[in-house]
Amino acid sequence: MPWTVYLSGEIHTDWRQRIEAGARERKLPVTFTSAVTDHDASDAAGDHLGAEDNAFWRDHKSAKVNAIRTKTLIEQADLVVVRFGDRYKQWNAAFDAGYCAALGKPYITLHDEALVHPLKEVDATALAWARTPEQVADILAYIITA
Amino acid sequence: MPWTVYLSGEIHTDWRQRIEAGARERKLPVTFTSAVTDHDASDAAGDHLGAEDNAFWRDHKSAKVNAIRTKTLIEQADLVVVRFGDRYKQWNAAFDAGYCAALGKPYITLHDEALVHPLKEVDATALAWARTPEQVADILAYIITA
Amino acid sequence: MPWTVYLSGEIHTDWRQRIEAGARERKLPVTFTSAVTDHDASDAAGDHLGAEDNAFWRDHKSAKVNAIRTKTLIEQADLVVVRFGDRYKQWNAAFDAGYCAALGKPYITLHDEALVHPLKEVDATALAWARTPEQVADILAYIITA
Amino acid sequence: MPWTVYLSGEIHTDWRQRIEAGARERKLPVTFTSAVTDHDASDAAGDHLGAEDNAFWRDHKSAKVNAIRTKTLIEQADLVVVRFGDRYKQWNAAFDAGYCAALGKPYITLHDEALVHPLKEVDATALAWARTPEQVADILAYIITA
Amino acid sequence: MPWTVYLSGEIHTDWRQRIEAGARERKLPVTFTSAVTDHDASDAAGDHLGAEDNAFWRDHKSAKVNAIRTKTLIEQADLVVVRFGDRYKQWNAAFDAGYCAALGKPYITLHDEALVHPLKEVDATALAWARTPEQVADILAYIITA
Amino acid sequence: MPWTVYLSGEIHTDWRQRIEAGARERKLPVTFTSAVTDHDASDAAGDHLGAEDNAFWRDHKSAKVNAIRTKTLIEQADLVVVRFGDRYKQWNAAFDAGYCAALGKPYITLHDEALVHPLKEVDATALAWARTPEQVADILAYIITA
Amino acid sequence: MPWTVYLSGEIHTDWRQRIEAGARERKLPVTFTSAVTDHDASDAAGDHLGAEDNAFWRDHKSAKVNAIRTKTLIEQADLVVVRFGDRYKQWNAAFDAGYCAALGKPYITLHDEALVHPLKEVDATALAWARTPEQVADILAYIITA
Amino acid sequence: MPWTVYLSGEIHTDWRQRIEAGARERKLPVTFTSAVTDHDASDAAGDHLGAEDNAFWRDHKSAKVNAIRTKTLIEQADLVVVRFGDRYKQWNAAFDAGYCAALGKPYITLHDEALVHPLKEVDATALAWARTPEQVADILAYIITA
Repeated sequence: MPWTVYLSGEIHTDWRQRIEAGARERKLPVTFTSAVTDHDASDAAGDHLGAEDNAFWRDHKSAKVNAIRTKTLIEQADLVVVRFGDRYKQWNAAFDAGYCAALGKPYITLHDEALVHPLKEVDATALAWARTPEQVADILAYIITA
Repeated sequence: MPWTVYLSGEIHTDWRQRIEAGARERKLPVTFTSAVTDHDASDAAGDHLGAEDNAFWRDHKSAKVNAIRTKTLIEQADLVVVRFGDRYKQWNAAFDAGYCAALGKPYITLHDEALVHPLKEVDATALAWARTPEQVADILAYIITA
Repeated sequence: MPWTVYLSGEIHTDWRQRIEAGARERKLPVTFTSAVTDHDASDAAGDHLGAEDNAFWRDHKSAKVNAIRTKTLIEQADLVVVRFGDRYKQWNAAFDAGYCAALGKPYITLHDEALVHPLKEVDATALAWARTPEQVADILAYIITA
Repeated sequence: MPWTVYLSGEIHTDWRQRIEAGARERKLPVTFTSAVTDHDASDAAGDHLGAEDNAFWRDHKSAKVNAIRTKTLIEQADLVVVRFGDRYKQWNAAFDAGYCAALGKPYITLHDEALVHPLKEVDATALAWARTPEQVADILAYIITA
Repeated sequence: MPWTVYLSGEIHTDWRQRIEAGARERKLPVTFTSAVTDHDASDAAGDHLGAEDNAFWRDHKSAKVNAIRTKTLIEQADLVVVRFGDRYKQWNAAFDAGYCAALGKPYITLHDEALVHPLKEVDATALAWARTPEQVADILAYIITA
Repeated sequence: MPWTVYLSGEIHTDWRQRIEAGARERKLPVTFTSAVTDHDASDAAGDHLGAEDNAFWRDHKSAKVNAIRTKTLIEQADLVVVRFGDRYKQWNAAFDAGYCAALGKPYITLHDEALVHPLKEVDATALAWARTPEQVADILAYIITA
Repeated sequence: MPWTVYLSGEIHTDWRQRIEAGARERKLPVTFTSAVTDHDASDAAGDHLGAEDNAFWRDHKSAKVNAIRTKTLIEQADLVVVRFGDRYKQWNAAFDAGYCAALGKPYITLHDEALVHPLKEVDATALAWARTPEQVADILAYIITA
Repeated sequence: MPWTVYLSGEIHTDWRQRIEAGARERKLPVTFTSAVTDHDASDAAGDHLGAEDNAFWRDHKSAKVNAIRTKTLIEQADLVVVRFGDRYKQWNAAFDAGYCAALGKPYITLHDEALVHPLKEVDATALAWARTPEQVADILAYIITA
């Protein structure tokens, strides 16, 4: 049975590529989906509908256009991996985790030990906490093929 | 008709007291609820069930005990106000916002202009963005008594 | 058992007052709720959070603030009455009807015979079509006290 | 991942064809669905079940038969585009938008600037407002292929 | 904790009165609700909105007005008792049972042994089958006060 | 887009075959599903799990085994057709209609004019009433191919 | 805000009384609910509806009558405590836990260390594991009054 | 129409193989799914994410990793078979039954007569009780091909 896994969060490191490579090596029947990970394209998502002078409304418009994609893909996913890195606020990642929690959609967090305390509420409803992308690939292999 | 408003997020400034004072002055029929806002008590919530050596599991246990309260109160609320300050990660606040979004529960954000860009996904599904607690009280007065 | 009835739509005639008077005369245990019906106050709902230069965003901000009230009151209602008059677009009334239809919330429409054809989709999922506010009061009396 | 997009509203201009052409040019994996757009056939939908003398019931019967199609296709869609033109009441389009809002189904509105004020409630829960069919095609291209 | 029990079905015998008397004797904190049980008033429910020539549409209009009441009261009930007598089609009673089954609302059937075979699908999702109103009162006493 | 249509009710006439033939002639992409229509096999469904002495429990056991099939197929259907003939109680058909109504699943009734009055509650939430299987096929052709 | 707590499971020790006493001492605004805890009365619940020869069906009938109470009270509860003792199968307690998990209803388990391994799936979706009734009372005091 | 059947419970006898063999012999279009049935692998599921000293947390971590699989597969199944053997606590099987009951997901129990009394609550919401795997295969054949 094929699985769909949505990869949420940090866009500045290669964690997505490493999970995808791990799944390929293990020949897992997984389709990965994600938000638009090109930062500039994502910030400009709303510009397709006309420019905005006001920074708040430009962000607002772009965030809503991006939500068409993210909301749909999260709801179609069987599992969500939520990644927190050591830079930036990453509130969208925590938002996605809360969204999954309310839907009863299983999610895994991926972050370093240093973030354990501030992420305790996010981890509390996660079904697993991984420290490395390779651990995520191991978990996928286990749940899909064991 | 009485309203129940849950106040989520930052615990280091007096924003809750200012919203509550604003509601009292305006004589609004609002009951305010909240997570436990005593930081040390909140971190120790799980200790009632026995001590833990491991920092991750201590946090995990406490976060789950706190979730009994927060999940119940958020689901009983008519409206949630989510506050982001200028310090700390505050991922639990963004998590609560995502939780509300998935439930279709109305929420308002409360934060400074400086946080507009990193909060754009959280603001995108909010029904209002306020800069001050007094604005929140004004909005409550408007929606309840206008 | 007390009923809560939300009155949606037209704000330029006295149909709300006539339904409420009819319920009072018939001594029905009904609480009526409604959007803010002061047109200028409603258009300015978002101004409590700061002025906007752009007409679209001013409307957007106000509509969302109003939605905190309307969404909550519609979901709390046992029955919704949706009124269409002979002027203005009244798309918000049709929107409320669609919202009720998807929730499985019972609603009644109130409009003249002249509007039957353009309202056929809205009437198709309504549980009744009334021509006058007095007919609505009669129906309320019947369903509550018969 | 293929997308299904339901096109709701106005049937007197070629906006559907222009969105579909835009999607074809951009080679997007999108299936478009719609209500029956032949006005006379749609009004006569109930006549398959016998003629009606009374105008209200003829409309009622046809609207319900059409609802078998529209309700099913809207619920199967990943995204709905709701178009408002400058003529007619178009309450069915606003009804569809409200239906989507209650389901949490993402929708985009498509209308001219002149309609911004009367559509503010409908736009408030939309994820985007487009002025032209080409903008809709651009948004589809962005969310599907970016 | 007070219970609300909806009594659905047959209107030609005194089974409702006997259950209510049984609950009074046992001093149970139960509120009983019901459809309009005056047959002529129920058939004429739609006449408040104008007369109809066509028998189908008169029935249709009345049935929908009655549904405002029955749908609301069934959804508010903690338990539904569905009674089948030995005369008439009583399809509305079976319809109410199916409605409860889909909602996960507990219901009890009340009918003679002679109806066991034709009611087997209705009984299959009921939580109890009673032969007499007194048995229903006994069950209420047990579940509420034991 | 292929449709799945569940055919509920009467098993003593050839209405299913006539609808299926009508769909084939019109080359409609429809899959038809149904309860087990062999009366004896259906009554004996529970005997696979051991014989029962008591008539009530034999019926109960069979009805539950049949429910595995009917519940699943109804929930998978896009549309349900509920047929009432002139013989037998047919409470299972009315039960299926109520089940659909609560799920918001579209259904059509199929019955003669003579049954209009006792079926008024069942017809009130149906999206169409057909008198002949050929009318059902016409409606299917219209909603799928118009 | 008053809380309702359902106490599920073991009926052979005084754990319910100890939690209730703990809540009284701490003056907590909690209403406790429960299944019928008189073993013989519970086994005989269905006998109100007539005797059964067959042991399976007697149990079946009683279990369904009891479900009217337990299902309703669990769904009305804000929190469920599920107790496992050292004797008997106690599958009904694990069933209640699974029921809560699917509803997203918060629950706490109460059991000795010796049962940790066989209860790992039940504990995995619990929000807390307590070893003593007094710990449960402490947790209630914390979440309600902290 | 292909069916997906999840097999929950006992891992120490060959009941899964016997049901699968029965389905193969009867050429049924059924896909069977299951938890990881290798006991040691299942207990070690969380070790992929790092070792734990504390027995409770090791079990907790593994149970949650396993839940990613079991929750997803149960929700995707059309039918669940829950097997209880004569050894071990098997609380996870009862938990799965309760989970299905709350979701309205059909399930069948499979157990000996000796377990009837302690399983009465689990059987009360099951759609069938089978004594042998071959009976399960017979039921599958009946519901899928009759």
